[in-house]
Amino acid sequence: MNKLLVKKGRILTMTTDEPCILTGDILIEGSKITRIGEDLPEEGVDVIINAVGKVVLPGFINCHNHGAMSLFRGYSLDLRLMEWLSHKIWPAEERLDADAVYWGTMLAAAEMIKSGTTTFADMYFFMDEVAQAVEDSGMRAALCQGLLFIDDQGERRLRSAQKLFENWQGKADGRITTMVGPHAPHTCPPDKLKEVMEMARSFHCPIHIHLAETIEEVEHIFQHYGKSPVKYLSDLGIFEDHHCLLAHAVNLSRDDMYLLRGLKGGISHNPVSNQKLGCGVAPVVELRKMGITVALGTDGAGSASTLDMFEEMKATAWMQKNRTADPTAIKAYDVLRMATIEGAKALGLEEEVGTIEAGKRADLILVDIEKPHLYPQTDICALLAYAANGADVDTVIIDGKVVMEQRRLRCIDEKEVLKQAQRAAHRVIYGLRNGVPNLN
Amino acid sequence: MNKLLVKKGRILTMTTDEPCILTGDILIEGSKITRIGEDLPEEGVDVIINAVGKVVLPGFINCHNHGAMSLFRGYSLDLRLMEWLSHKIWPAEERLDADAVYWGTMLAAAEMIKSGTTTFADMYFFMDEVAQAVEDSGMRAALCQGLLFIDDQGERRLRSAQKLFENWQGKADGRITTMVGPHAPHTCPPDKLKEVMEMARSFHCPIHIHLAETIEEVEHIFQHYGKSPVKYLSDLGIFEDHHCLLAHAVNLSRDDMYLLRGLKGGISHNPVSNQKLGCGVAPVVELRKMGITVALGTDGAGSASTLDMFEEMKATAWMQKNRTADPTAIKAYDVLRMATIEGAKALGLEEEVGTIEAGKRADLILVDIEKPHLYPQTDICALLAYAANGADVDTVIIDGKVVMEQRRLRCIDEKEVLKQAQRAAHRVIYGLRNGVPNLN
Repeated sequence: MNKLLVKKGRILTMTTDEPCILTGDILIEGSKITRIGEDLPEEGVDVIINAVGKVVLPGFINCHNHGAMSLFRGYSLDLRLMEWLSHKIWPAEERLDADAVYWGTMLAAAEMIKSGTTTFADMYFFMDEVAQAVEDSGMRAALCQGLLFIDDQGERRLRSAQKLFENWQGKADGRITTMVGPHAPHTCPPDKLKEVMEMARSFHCPIHIHLAETIEEVEHIFQHYGKSPVKYLSDLGIFEDHHCLLAHAVNLSRDDMYLLRGLKGGISHNPVSNQKLGCGVAPVVELRKMGITVALGTDGAGSASTLDMFEEMKATAWMQKNRTADPTAIKAYDVLRMATIEGAKALGLEEEVGTIEAGKRADLILVDIEKPHLYPQTDICALLAYAANGADVDTVIIDGKVVMEQRRLRCIDEKEVLKQAQRAAHRVIYGLRNGVPNLN
Repeated sequence: MNKLLVKKGRILTMTTDEPCILTGDILIEGSKITRIGEDLPEEGVDVIINAVGKVVLPGFINCHNHGAMSLFRGYSLDLRLMEWLSHKIWPAEERLDADAVYWGTMLAAAEMIKSGTTTFADMYFFMDEVAQAVEDSGMRAALCQGLLFIDDQGERRLRSAQKLFENWQGKADGRITTMVGPHAPHTCPPDKLKEVMEMARSFHCPIHIHLAETIEEVEHIFQHYGKSPVKYLSDLGIFEDHHCLLAHAVNLSRDDMYLLRGLKGGISHNPVSNQKLGCGVAPVVELRKMGITVALGTDGAGSASTLDMFEEMKATAWMQKNRTADPTAIKAYDVLRMATIEGAKALGLEEEVGTIEAGKRADLILVDIEKPHLYPQTDICALLAYAANGADVDTVIIDGKVVMEQRRLRCIDEKEVLKQAQRAAHRVIYGLRNGVPNLN
C-alpha cells in the first residue's frame, strides 16, 4: 500500500464549527488519511510532500456541473437565457457526440483540479464518456444522466440512466457514484417523476434535480399545477424518501423554505451562473439558519465561464452580505464549509470526504500562500475565502493519489486536452469537421 | 533610447467601440508605443518579447485604492462597517507610520502588477512614502492626500496636499500625477470644500472624492443640508469647473444621475468593496447610458481583500446582469473598457494610456491564455472578462519598461516586501514592536 506524508503544512481540518488550524503532518496510506500529528515518522513512506508555506484543506466539492459544457465557455454569452439556449446552446448540443463530451469533460476536469476541486456532481448526456473522463482524470464524481420528458427520447434517457448505474456505480476504485437526475420540474411531469423516484429507490441512489432557478420556471409550474415548484416536488413525496440534491433554489417563497426543512441531502447554490443569467439571489442565509445544507456548485462553464470554486465562495459571500446589507450575515469560514463538508453532505459522501481527519479518503489540496495577494497572513480563512484564486492551488491529492504537483497535472495530458477540446468545440459549435479556424 | 519589440501577440487594442483584435507586433521606443504591425523589423531592437499564445492589452487602471490598506487585508472582516471602522481600522490607522505606509503600498504594488494593473489612483496619508513606493515599483499613479475636516488636523492635511503636489507632480519620469482629495461630503463642510476646490484650481489638478457610498452617508447629508450628497457637491459648483473622480456613487437617485450628466472625469465603480460592506449595487448600466464615464476600482484591500481587477470586471458584469435581470445589460467588452480606457478618462490620462496605439505610453500586459480555464478559444473578450484571473498575467510593461516577466517582478524584491509587510502589519494591527507571532 502506497504511503504518502504531507509534511509541515498549516492544516485547516474543516471538522469543527469554528476554524481549526493545526500545524503538522498528514499520513496517507492507500486512499485514506490514517494519521494527523506533529513530526510523524518518515519510515516506510514512499512519497514526502513538503507543505511548508502552504495551507492544506479538503478538496473542494462542486455540487452542480455539466462538465462537457466547458466546450461552450465564452460562446455567445451576454444573451438572454431563452435566446442563448434556443439559438445557440441547443443547436450546438444537437451536434454533441461521445468524443466531444469526453474531451469537454476532460477539459473541465483539468480546470477543476487546477483550481482545487476534487469531487464534482455532473448531470449531462453521453454519461459513459463522462464516467471515462472521471476515471482517466483521477477525480471523484457523482454522476447522473439528465432525464427530460419533453420529446420522444424520454425512454431512451431512462435506459441510459439504468446503464450508467449498472456500468459505473462504485467504479474507478469507488471514486464514481451515481445519482438519478430528473432534469427539472418543468421538464418532468408527475407520472415520470414517480417513475424516476422508483428508479432511485431501487438503485439506492440520491436524486439530483434543478429547482426554482428562474421566475419563469416558477410561473410555469404555477400555471400547470397551481403550486410552486418546491410544493410540486414536495406533494409527490420526493423529499420524504429520497436524498435530494437541489440545484439553484433561487426563487423560493417563505412557504417553500419551510417545506425544505429537514431536507435529506442539500442545495447546490451556484451564484456565478445565477448572476450571469440574471436569475436572482438565493436566500442562502435564511436556508442555512433553518438548518438546511447549502453547498456550492459552478453550473456548466457555458453559463458560469469558470469552474473555479474560489469564485463561487467569493460570489456567495459578496451577494449575501450585500443582499442582507449585513457584512456579518455570512463569514469566511461559512463559505469554506459550503465548498467542502457541506458539499460532501449534499452528495451523501460526508463519511468519505469533506474534512481532514483519520479514516476519511485523502482528498486534499495544498494552497500556496506565499504571494503578495495573500499577505499579510493574519487570518487564513479570510485569505482563502476572499483573496485566493484557483491558481494558488499548488498540489492536489485525490483518493491518496497525487493528481497535481506544483501545478503540473499528473493524470491528464494538458496539452492534448486543450488541443482536443478546441477541435471538438469547433466541430460542435460551428459544425466544422476539419481544421481550426483562427477565431477571435 | 531603449527599443522593445512585443512579437506575434493577439492585440486587443481597446481603441474601438467593438472589439478589435489584431495579430502582430508592437514596437516600443523609450516610454512610448511607436508602431503596431505585422512582422516589424528586429534591427536595432534591444529586447524582444515573444507574445505567441498571449493576448496583449492595455494595463488595467485601478481608479480607487488606498494601497497601504493592504496591510489590513483579512483583518477583522465580516463586521458591520461602523464597527469595523471604529473598533478595528481607525485604531490601527492611528498606529500607522511612514514605514508601514511605504511597505503597505509596495505590497499593493506587487499585487497590482502581478494581476495586470499598471496605473492606480490612491488616496491616503503619508503620501511621500506612497509616492516613493510608486517610483520604486515602476507603477503609474494619480495620488492624493485624503483631506478630512473632522478634527484639528485639517490644516496639517491641507499642507500635506500642497507638499505632495510640489514634491511629486510629474515625477518618476512623469509616472506620478497628483490630485486633490477631499475625503467625502460628510467629512468636508462647504467652506472647506470651497478651499479645496480653490487648491485644485491653482494646481490644475483633478479632484478625487468618495460619494454616495452608503445609505447612512445619504441620510447624514440630507439631515445636515436638506439635499443629497450629489446635490450638495453640485450646488457648490464642483462639477462645473473641475475634473472629478467620484468613488462609489452607489446610492443615487434619478435626480442625482441627471445632475452627473456631462461630468468631467468619471465614476470609479468598486463592486467588490461595495458588496462586502453591504453598500448596495450602483446603477452602472443607467450611468453608462447617460454617457457618464464609469471606470473600475478595487478600494483598499482592507475591505475588498483583493486588488485584482479581473475580480472587479467579473463582479461588475455579474451584478449588473443580475440587478437588471438582463444578461445583455452589460457585456464582456464593456467591462474591459471600464478597466482600461474608461479608467484613463476618469483620471484624465486618456491621451497617455488606456489603449494600445502609436503615440501612447507603453503600458501593456500579456495574458497567457494557454490554460484549461481559457479554452476553447472562441471569444477572447469573454475569456478575459469572465474566466481569466490575475495569475494569468504573464508579463507587464509600464512606461516602456518591463516590470514583470514570466511572473517575476523586476523592480520589486518580492520576498523582502512580504517580510516587511508582515512585520509592519503586526506592528500596526497589534502594536507589536518586535517579532512576528504565529497567527491563524
